Amino acid sequence: MTREEVSMFITLEGIEGSGKTTQITAIKKYLEAAGHGVVVTREPGATAIGQRIRSIVLDPENHDISPLCELLLYGADRAQHLAQVVVPALDAGKIVLCDRFADATRVYQGVARGLDMALIDAIHGMVVGPLTPDLTILFDLEPETGLSRTFKALENGQRESQESRFEKEALAFHAAVRSGYLALAQKEKQRFFVVDASLQPDEVFIQIKQGLATCLGIHI
Amino acid sequence: MTREEVSMFITLEGIEGSGKTTQITAIKKYLEAAGHGVVVTREPGATAIGQRIRSIVLDPENHDISPLCELLLYGADRAQHLAQVVVPALDAGKIVLCDRFADATRVYQGVARGLDMALIDAIHGMVVGPLTPDLTILFDLEPETGLSRTFKALENGQRESQESRFEKEALAFHAAVRSGYLALAQKEKQRFFVVDASLQPDEVFIQIKQGLATCLGIHI
Repeated sequence: MTREEVSMFITLEGIEGSGKTTQITAIKKYLEAAGHGVVVTREPGATAIGQRIRSIVLDPENHDISPLCELLLYGADRAQHLAQVVVPALDAGKIVLCDRFADATRVYQGVARGLDMALIDAIHGMVVGPLTPDLTILFDLEPETGLSRTFKALENGQRESQESRFEKEALAFHAAVRSGYLALAQKEKQRFFVVDASLQPDEVFIQIKQGLATCLGIHI
Repeated sequence: MTREEVSMFITLEGIEGSGKTTQITAIKKYLEAAGHGVVVTREPGATAIGQRIRSIVLDPENHDISPLCELLLYGADRAQHLAQVVVPALDAGKIVLCDRFADATRVYQGVARGLDMALIDAIHGMVVGPLTPDLTILFDLEPETGLSRTFKALENGQRESQESRFEKEALAFHAAVRSGYLALAQKEKQRFFVVDASLQPDEVFIQIKQGLATCLGIHI
């Protein structure tokens, strides 16, 4: 793949309620103010086909989904997303801000659900190939705080209730997700920037700006 | 996998309009008369989750689906189908009659569409593993005959019009599918039994009975 110098692939990862959605809008504005073209996207469900895949994997009715089926559906969503959104944007010299990417599969399906990590890596090999994020911002948070934020948002009707399959999982699951993310961040230090997502949104954003400056050399 | 002696996995393959659907009912009755428990199934779309996947891959609107996304969706459907239908039926000592299986992916996506066969085989390795059909009945037919039968059925409203994406493909495509199937049958002679699907249904069924006797030792 040929990518222009300015193109960057930034992923945001973290447990439910860690504030990724709030911050991604602020990051977009900040990067645009610095003169960059920015594409905001997410997984799963950024394309029309991905939306239909997302509705299958997140439907609480589908409790009997086979683990391998689930992995392949996430892979299919990702393949379509890369082909239709991410790669064309990077090729056009844009900064892509992606709410969850391959790390989420490693952590949610691999670490927390215990699916075969070799299988996950094999699917990533097919789908993602050598494309690695230039920066991954990890929103780190106690699962108790994240879940209580999420349930409040659900009560206020700010989130789709059909997306709540994962949010109904036990606290232990979310704790495993958090540890999984922290272990990945430790293993791939060069790419990860960990922010303390328990702080107020404006304080979190200050940390993110530091990350953009330190890791990518972006300042305003 | 532990399988009882009596369990058998029989797949039916062939181009559109080759008469698989008509024959599968007759084969089921015949095998039941011989005292076997029989499960009739198909790909894609044999499970509730598979139905939703099938509606994505066969929707003519989804012309921009990436080839890899399409392969992974077929893989996801197959993983769910094997876990929920095929393997439990084989474990229970049943004969499974499956309308299209992994050979269809090899031929439609690999041979006719030209997708990377190594990728197809890698996905099959994950999803199908060592499970090989005991018998594959190939319904061989000139594409012209198959398509003219299919269009007649469409006009009579016997088939879902949303399933017609593949049937709108050029004749050359279906000719490539036919050659692909014949090449597979030549390569894996032990497993394949080729019937002349241009004949009348009762004559085709006589051939199938010969196949069941020759390949699996099933007689009435």
